[in-house]
Amino acid sequence: MSDFSTRPGRLKPAPENFLSSDEIAQVQSGRRDFLRRSLVLASGAAAAAVAGGPAAAEGGSVEGDPAILKLPPWSTTLGKAVATNPYGMPSPYEKNLVRRQSPGLTQVSQASVAFTPLQGLFGIITPSGLHFERHHQGWVDIDPSQHRFMVNGLVKRPKVYTMDDLMRLPSVSRIHFIECGANSAMNWGNVAVPTVQYTHGMLSCSEFTGVPLSVILDDCGFDRKRGKFILAEGADGSSETRTIAIERALDDVIVAWGQNGEMLRPENGYPLRLVVPGVQGVSNVKWLRRIKVGDMPFGAKDETVAYADLLPSGLQRQYTSIQECKSVITSPSGGQILLEKGYFNVTGLAWSGRGRIKRVDVSADGGRNWRTARLETPVLTKALTRFNIDWVWDGKPAILQSRAIDETGFVQPTMKQLREVRGTKSTYHNNGVQSWMIAESGEVSNVEVS
Amino acid sequence: MSDFSTRPGRLKPAPENFLSSDEIAQVQSGRRDFLRRSLVLASGAAAAAVAGGPAAAEGGSVEGDPAILKLPPWSTTLGKAVATNPYGMPSPYEKNLVRRQSPGLTQVSQASVAFTPLQGLFGIITPSGLHFERHHQGWVDIDPSQHRFMVNGLVKRPKVYTMDDLMRLPSVSRIHFIECGANSAMNWGNVAVPTVQYTHGMLSCSEFTGVPLSVILDDCGFDRKRGKFILAEGADGSSETRTIAIERALDDVIVAWGQNGEMLRPENGYPLRLVVPGVQGVSNVKWLRRIKVGDMPFGAKDETVAYADLLPSGLQRQYTSIQECKSVITSPSGGQILLEKGYFNVTGLAWSGRGRIKRVDVSADGGRNWRTARLETPVLTKALTRFNIDWVWDGKPAILQSRAIDETGFVQPTMKQLREVRGTKSTYHNNGVQSWMIAESGEVSNVEVS
Repeated sequence: MSDFSTRPGRLKPAPENFLSSDEIAQVQSGRRDFLRRSLVLASGAAAAAVAGGPAAAEGGSVEGDPAILKLPPWSTTLGKAVATNPYGMPSPYEKNLVRRQSPGLTQVSQASVAFTPLQGLFGIITPSGLHFERHHQGWVDIDPSQHRFMVNGLVKRPKVYTMDDLMRLPSVSRIHFIECGANSAMNWGNVAVPTVQYTHGMLSCSEFTGVPLSVILDDCGFDRKRGKFILAEGADGSSETRTIAIERALDDVIVAWGQNGEMLRPENGYPLRLVVPGVQGVSNVKWLRRIKVGDMPFGAKDETVAYADLLPSGLQRQYTSIQECKSVITSPSGGQILLEKGYFNVTGLAWSGRGRIKRVDVSADGGRNWRTARLETPVLTKALTRFNIDWVWDGKPAILQSRAIDETGFVQPTMKQLREVRGTKSTYHNNGVQSWMIAESGEVSNVEVS
Repeated sequence: MSDFSTRPGRLKPAPENFLSSDEIAQVQSGRRDFLRRSLVLASGAAAAAVAGGPAAAEGGSVEGDPAILKLPPWSTTLGKAVATNPYGMPSPYEKNLVRRQSPGLTQVSQASVAFTPLQGLFGIITPSGLHFERHHQGWVDIDPSQHRFMVNGLVKRPKVYTMDDLMRLPSVSRIHFIECGANSAMNWGNVAVPTVQYTHGMLSCSEFTGVPLSVILDDCGFDRKRGKFILAEGADGSSETRTIAIERALDDVIVAWGQNGEMLRPENGYPLRLVVPGVQGVSNVKWLRRIKVGDMPFGAKDETVAYADLLPSGLQRQYTSIQECKSVITSPSGGQILLEKGYFNVTGLAWSGRGRIKRVDVSADGGRNWRTARLETPVLTKALTRFNIDWVWDGKPAILQSRAIDETGFVQPTMKQLREVRGTKSTYHNNGVQSWMIAESGEVSNVEVS
């Protein structure tokens, strides 16, 4: 049993957005306000806890808490009817937990990113309303009765499927993460992106339902001899196109219409997207309208001028696809403030495009000492895995890091190790260890440990 | 490989609500409209498929499909910006897939039920916006900063926790179903409830995050000798209260704030609810405000006059809690219409309050012959399990049934077996085999096989 019961720690949530230096000053003064409000509003116990006194160990006394003595209005009134919201929404008190665009990151907001607020999420399922967005020419509202999905190229029977055609086929349901190849890109520049929403928020995990691509390719009689690659094409204005090797296409790829129990959301490809487990987001083509079978890679725009890695040798690494083993601590994380020393539940996410997570280690001293975290179940292949570990902050400066190891034995590299191989000019595929520095003031910031 | 590629089957979705006989007549005439529209709108292939011709086997010809020849507007225009919806919503084309109250089922809509639309869902995760609702005095919007959670009774250290206090504690995340004890209650009356939304829709499954109740009880130093039961109490106007045996409380019960990655929804207990895996919904107390440790069952209203089973002997069975092994086919299901004979992917859900699902069998002839369905992974303890099985409809009357078996070896009973033990006066705990009759017309209806 950890000692959380005798040493409570409290933290102030991260600002949910980029902050200017003025705004940061406000947060800092707000911190004092926050403490003052705690003293006024909360129970004697809460006050004692803030003061670090021994009564904190006992929780609030039952008698002393005004919130217990006086019944709140929701306990004394008739509530709202069932199906008041036929499709329910989050509490109004959670209105700040939203996807956010990074101001200035891209020139056009139709070819941009909205990041998932990882700092406020639990478990491994990302609510569909908070799944990150990365569009190349904006998102579209497709009428499913008008949508067509074509298979052509090296197939005996080119076909056009309606959504009805597809949804009657044998389906599978599986939980997988999708991560943009450019996730954590700004960390390459060592620009101290302030919060985990922006460092790692091009990452989400859903239960997807659809028909295996292998079933579709069989249905169309693809050329097993000459068919070496497929092209996947989207129906949005950008006609996003990606090459996928036939071995992968026949393995675990899904032509998916379902996400977290319901139809895909419009921003995530409604009514049809490709799910290519473990492979960078751009290959999980949204608004999927075509699969073409070919005998060589297709060399699309986003496989040549973008989503390629410029190596120190000057060569471009093309067709990088698998999202390698990676992890990040989501709380405490950048922008949060530890309001007192004591016990904290350190939590985060780990994932690997090559299979299951085997272990996650956590360091509080910048990588000198490591302890093994608890993994929440289920631990699934090519899915997010939630980890938790107990930690007691002694009030001194600390550097929190997590390091994931997958079932292939691959160990997530440090930024230093990654830079040694990849040089200084990469944009994509940053799976380096994330470091959060805790200052003596309790403020958490994004640093790179050399 | 099944023969779906040569024998396509289409179905018309279920009416998403109760229908009057007038409305049913409209659906039936609408069926003809539907076919006519298919012929006009869709490809040559779709037309051939409706006619059952051999071209259906080939899918649409690439050349013949107007939807392919002419690019739709979403392929030729600039789409919408990222974060247009900071919290995303389903496509407007999915607006009928909602929770619904059953008209006339209860007198007051604050003490009623809104059912989950199982007929339109995939996989095992229920979108939080579609989680079923069952309230005893309506649902409430609680301010989490004002919410208090008290532990008292046979404990050394009675405590009052704020949400901040709780959320710093070591947490777990697990996927579990919640089913109301009254789910399928109307099937006891053999009233032919028309759709699976109303027969089985008091059933949902989510990933929950929170602190194990055992950690809280330890924190308060509960009396290990005299503490035999706990009382869980809600903060809504009904003060819903339930007794739970201490062995269960110390096992896998969670004091939960997270649901499917985010905070609980207001209708489902925001900011705090109890999750008692495998036990009927009413014990998963929403808006949780208190746990009291006692030395005997508390005999609350909903453990005496309700949620008890009147047995043939005239005795009331009290404290029934575990939701026994059960399953249901969600498609094809009541209210849907099979528009042609041929291949169908039969899909459904299985679950057991006692552990994992081991096997699901499916019959198409009212229980004479059974075949084993595919189970989608992950198969988790006390969670929904999705099953799929291939089936070719020959156009003759058929009765579809599913029968689940859990890891304890418990076999889901037929309605006949259940009635032999439980008599005719039960309201709760109906886990009998569900039968869907397919008429020669293709219409699917709810029947009881004797």
